[in-house]
Amino acid sequence: MPIKSLIRTIPHYPKQGIQFRDITTLLKDPIGFRMVVDALAHHYAHQKIDKIAGIEARGFIIGAALAYKLGVGFVPIRKSGKLPAETVGHDYALEYGADRVEIHTDAIAHGEQVLLVDDLIATGGTAEAAAALIQKLGGVVMGCTFVIDLPDLGGSKRLVENGLKPFSLCEFEGD
Amino acid sequence: MPIKSLIRTIPHYPKQGIQFRDITTLLKDPIGFRMVVDALAHHYAHQKIDKIAGIEARGFIIGAALAYKLGVGFVPIRKSGKLPAETVGHDYALEYGADRVEIHTDAIAHGEQVLLVDDLIATGGTAEAAAALIQKLGGVVMGCTFVIDLPDLGGSKRLVENGLKPFSLCEFEGD
Repeated sequence: MPIKSLIRTIPHYPKQGIQFRDITTLLKDPIGFRMVVDALAHHYAHQKIDKIAGIEARGFIIGAALAYKLGVGFVPIRKSGKLPAETVGHDYALEYGADRVEIHTDAIAHGEQVLLVDDLIATGGTAEAAAALIQKLGGVVMGCTFVIDLPDLGGSKRLVENGLKPFSLCEFEGD
Repeated sequence: MPIKSLIRTIPHYPKQGIQFRDITTLLKDPIGFRMVVDALAHHYAHQKIDKIAGIEARGFIIGAALAYKLGVGFVPIRKSGKLPAETVGHDYALEYGADRVEIHTDAIAHGEQVLLVDDLIATGGTAEAAAALIQKLGGVVMGCTFVIDLPDLGGSKRLVENGLKPFSLCEFEGD
């Protein structure tokens, strides 16, 4: 798949043994970037989407372009302390330690159908926390979409089990 | 102007005396978001743009949607230590202390015409540092574009003086 061939692998980043999948080589390619956004838009063409929520920071890039393409509003989900107005937050566990994502309380109205967007799904912890935020505001997570799935890390399976309907454009094995 | 009316002002954020101009209320509005991107695309319709560079993190949202609309590649300019491959950086002074922005060395080819995008221009320090990165790679900054200008803080004037051609969709006075 051409999208996959435009993604660069950086060995041992950010630490020994991790193969980092870098989408900046895909984003800077005008055909590649357009192909990603159009493929995602095509996948969701017949589903009702009220808003797109993008996860900081690479999810902003894919999510905002997709929101523009679909003609819907864009909502940022950010790390702790970054949003200026009233927020709700959700804490979640990392391999070592914990993290927190936040959303503006007025970002999503009750019953709105929200598509969650990030560049990559690994263990699924961040996506699950982001989905919980949308649900806390009364929104419906109608799907979670990614450019890359690392299926060996189990995140997409976990989202399926939780009814969060993951969809990715390509996979990298062996991470 | 309708775009301006969709921007929320948060008093005394992030500190006493600052009026924070919050674009999340604009972004979540499907008409508002589309209007912003279309207005910027219209402004640059007859100019040669090879790439859009967006400044982390809100510049990713506006910049990526605009890159999609214009059919060009997108390049992220990030805070120190966030990009995975080889980078060049530029240090700049803040009111208190200093900061640093970075770009991948392969993000821009020599002679490419680059449009720099962020949500807001205040003193212009970050935009000027980001422009310096593009120039270090041999790129040409054909313009710098923002949703909001705070003209009292002098950033847009400073960019004009440095030949960086700022353009904004609206202004807020008295900051």
